[in-house]
Amino acid sequence: MKDNMQVQLASTPESQPLPEHFSLVKGDMPQAGENQVLCETMYLSLDPYMRSQIAGRHMSGSVNPGDVMRGETVSKVIESNHANFNVGDVVRCFGGWQNYSVHDGDTIFKVKKEIDNPSYALSALGMPGLTAYAGMVWQAQPKAGDVVVIPAAIGGVGSVAGQLAKIYGCTVIGIAGTDEKCDYAVKNLGYDACINRKKGDLGEQLDKLCPNGVDIFFDLVGGDMLNTVSERLAVGARVILCGLMADYNKTTRSMGPPPAMWIKARAIVYGLVVYDFEPRRDEFVDACVKYIKEGKLIVREDVAQGLEAAPDAFCRLMRGENMGKAVVKI
Amino acid sequence: MKDNMQVQLASTPESQPLPEHFSLVKGDMPQAGENQVLCETMYLSLDPYMRSQIAGRHMSGSVNPGDVMRGETVSKVIESNHANFNVGDVVRCFGGWQNYSVHDGDTIFKVKKEIDNPSYALSALGMPGLTAYAGMVWQAQPKAGDVVVIPAAIGGVGSVAGQLAKIYGCTVIGIAGTDEKCDYAVKNLGYDACINRKKGDLGEQLDKLCPNGVDIFFDLVGGDMLNTVSERLAVGARVILCGLMADYNKTTRSMGPPPAMWIKARAIVYGLVVYDFEPRRDEFVDACVKYIKEGKLIVREDVAQGLEAAPDAFCRLMRGENMGKAVVKI
Repeated sequence: MKDNMQVQLASTPESQPLPEHFSLVKGDMPQAGENQVLCETMYLSLDPYMRSQIAGRHMSGSVNPGDVMRGETVSKVIESNHANFNVGDVVRCFGGWQNYSVHDGDTIFKVKKEIDNPSYALSALGMPGLTAYAGMVWQAQPKAGDVVVIPAAIGGVGSVAGQLAKIYGCTVIGIAGTDEKCDYAVKNLGYDACINRKKGDLGEQLDKLCPNGVDIFFDLVGGDMLNTVSERLAVGARVILCGLMADYNKTTRSMGPPPAMWIKARAIVYGLVVYDFEPRRDEFVDACVKYIKEGKLIVREDVAQGLEAAPDAFCRLMRGENMGKAVVKI
Repeated sequence: MKDNMQVQLASTPESQPLPEHFSLVKGDMPQAGENQVLCETMYLSLDPYMRSQIAGRHMSGSVNPGDVMRGETVSKVIESNHANFNVGDVVRCFGGWQNYSVHDGDTIFKVKKEIDNPSYALSALGMPGLTAYAGMVWQAQPKAGDVVVIPAAIGGVGSVAGQLAKIYGCTVIGIAGTDEKCDYAVKNLGYDACINRKKGDLGEQLDKLCPNGVDIFFDLVGGDMLNTVSERLAVGARVILCGLMADYNKTTRSMGPPPAMWIKARAIVYGLVVYDFEPRRDEFVDACVKYIKEGKLIVREDVAQGLEAAPDAFCRLMRGENMGKAVVKI
């Protein structure tokens, strides 16, 4: 029997997570029971929401010291006791940070044949992509000419949201944390401009780039940035509240913008939780597979090699050092 | 020629406005020019947004010391140089806090014949009513069984919003500042319950009355109350951002709730500005005239007598002491 290596949470980080908050341990090789499937992990997705899980405050549940880290994976079926799955099927499941996992057959999903690159099922064609599509297309309903601001501009969600807005004919302004990221956003992803949030005053730069205000803000960050952008909304603006990167490493929660800003803009503000849009996943995958084939949607992944690299890759993600969607090839 | 008595702003209040911040002066009797109409004020509307105007931070413009106070009125045409208006017509206009005013014919509107009581064109069938209708019916889209929370429960906007929610089959919880107001909300306006916000902990009382959370919050207050209610939103909640009573007497603006609360509830939050809904005013008046005739919509007005009583009535309004929509019979 093979070893099942696992990454467990060793201790709960108080601010920025560090590799020593995790431990690589040999776990029990799981057994597939009735109607269950044994899977071998191919790719693991690393996402900012995991920071909330290990802080014990995510709606999907908590990860405590001694628990295996949770996470979505693309995995290969290596043993099946379920009629719908055969050995060799490539599936999407919450396999976690480990080599092997067992699942009830009704909790896993085959990766659609149209998805050539299996890791894409965790990035542009997976949950981050669905998040971007739901917020940008279904909630914000972009119109040609809208001015759209995308923080975390080349991250897993932001990169898809920004490119979708371009496809819909919007002017898209990214915000990112390094010049390298900003260059990539403009040169490779087609953003009209990208602001390095660590250089100069964000508000002043937005005033220059968006003299008539911001029509759509896809908020992945919260904190001060949400206030700064909310002060500059155009009448009829849409704000998608999706992520809180500014708060994930903090123990307190930032307050939101003064409501007057949203009243003044007659804004519509949407709280986005991607799980609500699962029933429409096929619609999104079909649209985005097409955009990728047409070269309109560029997928950039930041791929770490091997399970033992996962803690460091996650810490880099939480420091904002990833270039593209963070995944681990197991 | 008759005197044109006017109430002017004497000085800008720093916190609660007091009668001495206003002065009653004899103004010039205005003359109707070409295409203009001379009106005599019948009723003057007093509204919380005026506190923002005299603070110089309302989107409709500022009122400075020495200026006549602005405000919507129901007035009678006493001289007309405009083809659409005859002497004796009752019109809705922004006549201000004075006896006589002159208007271009295209800036005033006849009070619909269906409105028996002219002052209603300033309350339940006027701008406060339109505000309530736009937010509750058009934006929040109430469904039978929704749990609705209405602060300023018996005020000009709140009393209409709450009764509309009852008409749509919702459970309606009011919030008001005195036991007398709460009694009136339950006994006369049909609220299911009403919380005196000055007694006990608001959050605990909401937890008891809304064990499954709040589906619609029609926010007229902002500040801490918005946070307290936002913590208790049900999934799929709608929040109407309409008023900021908690901030009107302050020089700083309260921050909004942490965005996480709205994400968790998948809330849709609407910034409401009543002017946007002017094109649909007839639709609202027709619906609400019918509700009044059927006895489903009770109109309560807090009527002060005479222009000289306006400053005191406005100060009472800003202290929350009015019972129903504040108007002045001139």
